[in-house]
Amino acid sequence: MTPSKLTASEASRAIASGKLTSEALLRSCLERIQEQEEQVKAFAHLAEGPALKVARALDQMPSKGPLHGIPFAAKDIIDSHDMPTSYGSAIYTGAQPFADASCIALARRSGGILLGKTVTTEFANLTPNETRNPVDITRTPGGSSSGSAAAVAAGMVPVAFGTQTTQSTIRPSAFCGAHGYNPTTGDFRMSGIREAAGTFDRLGLITRSLEDIRLFRDILLFRPPSVFEIASKAPRIGFCRSHLWDEVDNFYKSEIEAAVERLKLAGATVKEIDLPIEFLGLPEAHRWVSSFEFARNFAFEIDLHWEKISQRLRDGRITDGLNCSPERYFEALMTIRVAMENLPKIFDGIDVIITASTLGPAPIGINATGSASIGSIWTPLHLPCVTLPVFKNPEGLPLGLQVLGPLHGDDKLLADAAWIEHSL
Amino acid sequence: MTPSKLTASEASRAIASGKLTSEALLRSCLERIQEQEEQVKAFAHLAEGPALKVARALDQMPSKGPLHGIPFAAKDIIDSHDMPTSYGSAIYTGAQPFADASCIALARRSGGILLGKTVTTEFANLTPNETRNPVDITRTPGGSSSGSAAAVAAGMVPVAFGTQTTQSTIRPSAFCGAHGYNPTTGDFRMSGIREAAGTFDRLGLITRSLEDIRLFRDILLFRPPSVFEIASKAPRIGFCRSHLWDEVDNFYKSEIEAAVERLKLAGATVKEIDLPIEFLGLPEAHRWVSSFEFARNFAFEIDLHWEKISQRLRDGRITDGLNCSPERYFEALMTIRVAMENLPKIFDGIDVIITASTLGPAPIGINATGSASIGSIWTPLHLPCVTLPVFKNPEGLPLGLQVLGPLHGDDKLLADAAWIEHSL
Repeated sequence: MTPSKLTASEASRAIASGKLTSEALLRSCLERIQEQEEQVKAFAHLAEGPALKVARALDQMPSKGPLHGIPFAAKDIIDSHDMPTSYGSAIYTGAQPFADASCIALARRSGGILLGKTVTTEFANLTPNETRNPVDITRTPGGSSSGSAAAVAAGMVPVAFGTQTTQSTIRPSAFCGAHGYNPTTGDFRMSGIREAAGTFDRLGLITRSLEDIRLFRDILLFRPPSVFEIASKAPRIGFCRSHLWDEVDNFYKSEIEAAVERLKLAGATVKEIDLPIEFLGLPEAHRWVSSFEFARNFAFEIDLHWEKISQRLRDGRITDGLNCSPERYFEALMTIRVAMENLPKIFDGIDVIITASTLGPAPIGINATGSASIGSIWTPLHLPCVTLPVFKNPEGLPLGLQVLGPLHGDDKLLADAAWIEHSL
Repeated sequence: MTPSKLTASEASRAIASGKLTSEALLRSCLERIQEQEEQVKAFAHLAEGPALKVARALDQMPSKGPLHGIPFAAKDIIDSHDMPTSYGSAIYTGAQPFADASCIALARRSGGILLGKTVTTEFANLTPNETRNPVDITRTPGGSSSGSAAAVAAGMVPVAFGTQTTQSTIRPSAFCGAHGYNPTTGDFRMSGIREAAGTFDRLGLITRSLEDIRLFRDILLFRPPSVFEIASKAPRIGFCRSHLWDEVDNFYKSEIEAAVERLKLAGATVKEIDLPIEFLGLPEAHRWVSSFEFARNFAFEIDLHWEKISQRLRDGRITDGLNCSPERYFEALMTIRVAMENLPKIFDGIDVIITASTLGPAPIGINATGSASIGSIWTPLHLPCVTLPVFKNPEGLPLGLQVLGPLHGDDKLLADAAWIEHSL
């Protein structure tokens, strides 16, 4: 098999057993980039030379850890000490941070090779840069982790870091046909990642398998590597259409409903769940909290570099945020707190929730990144979530199934999601 | 009155009414620095020239906001685009960030003048740098916001930003005889402030009056300035000795108990409160959560600059953190969650809690910053808190009274604390 098609876990085993070198793997990834990058434009910065140097050095060295010799990429709002970080904004073109973000340092400690920084929308908000969806380059890859999802889906790197404040890991992963994962909010450290809205910001993973999510989760928690296993027992599933069901693409709806039937046949219990009344205010609360925080976090850019901020960001998040009073902000935080207190109600007798990952497939055009509305329900709840690339529409466009677990139930969520993926 | 002795609010009124210029105020602060800095060593970087230039420009300009012409300082783990930020570590000597932290940008937007960066302990942890307590230079100013507290107490600037992960704003404020304040965790944005342990990290304020805390709180929330008023009604006070009472200095204990009597005479109701059993695990939970997060946040420094990290930090926080398993970390987070769910029990029928700010006055010597143990109970609860410089021991050393309010009750807390300060 072409090495660039391997998952990180597969490549790691091949390297450990001497069947593959780190340099050969990297060269295979670079070939894939060579073929695709001109059209896809996934990378904001590609460190081909330094990465090859590291790969050759690792090939001469005893194993540093479970990522020994594995290339990865990081969204361009995540700092590294040896590559510029531009946050998707002309204000920061070529800006060189002093340190590696926690996630990059931990991946490197374990033998990973940072191959480059992937394109982000402007400050991880809505204004896209030039990345295209590798499945269909007339379409958006989604955002804000646009380049991370595109690079993984195109086979350029097995794993890339993204972040999510609304739906910025799940949506691009689903649009591009990758696996996406966000941990329980707070699990992964944010040092070296620019804060957009601290209440919601999460580091996310975009991969080509659930096993790779588990692999990187171990590394980011700095715990010993564990063997990834599918849940031995069929999970008890809550199927939540949510109030956004009417807005979901018809083909996608029928695929999700058919999947529910297949999961039942495979032995899962599936209970339909309605969101309790306390949850209805979440999208509005998400809007005000994220806007309030964003507008204050970017006070420097607003005051000193206003002319370099996109019109969409000025008129959207920033205007919303500057118009949001602290009273409205605190009220929105309280709405979220009350909903979170009601989470045990939702998870009563169920292990995981399944729901749509997006409203439909990636829209045509690269001037917008598609609706993030599904994330405005789930992100404020801090729940761990994955999207599984299990559907395709008649045009061949990927569609995801989102699976969410209870707070701090990440390890079980990944095992249950593997059961679901295996059964579909 | 010497302008450097004015609070920010007093100086702001004097400038607005034309009785004082920004330049005269700044020159008065610089004189004070000239007199004291050689001994106190509060500043890691002093921007005398640029600050004078800004002051003169502001004197020629219509008011930019309620901080028009007011100098302030910021702890040296808070970035600014025009001064180096060294995080109290030799690894970052002279490092120049690209942007202002949110707090600095918001204060500047409102007319404030950043006069310099104040000394922090190494990465806002326990290893002190060379700052001394201006009340008695044989003693520590406390930490980690050492220079911020020293600068404000010495009359060098009316207000300085600090941060707190355990007790790093309250302790140095109390040791130096300043007012210290931390908001409900999450209220103030952290963009541009290096993450130590994100679950607890808070931006704090060190000032010479409660009115100045309110002034800066308005600015950091970016809301219209409000008039600061003392609570019109005597607060219902909960007096909590906590399980640390036996460790508190005897004179300090008797002062706190005498204060309770005076507050009763002034009309407050005071109820003694014991911490419910759910709170007893907080210090241990605080230790593991902060160490787990710190050790992962500083992975880059640990891996690439180990030799420049102090022995105390290596053997303390970092060793603790690397030895803490995710299971222990998640368990500690759960301990905190359960305690927070029990907060309504504590605040049942009371407006504020009063307790000690420290175990006693600033210890002799500058090789350690004094015990932070009181903070390990209260910081994990995310409660807003102030320390009031209302006591002095027979040697003339300051002692504080800590006043805590319920979550998001910051504005009322400040008004109630003013009532308490006025009554003592």
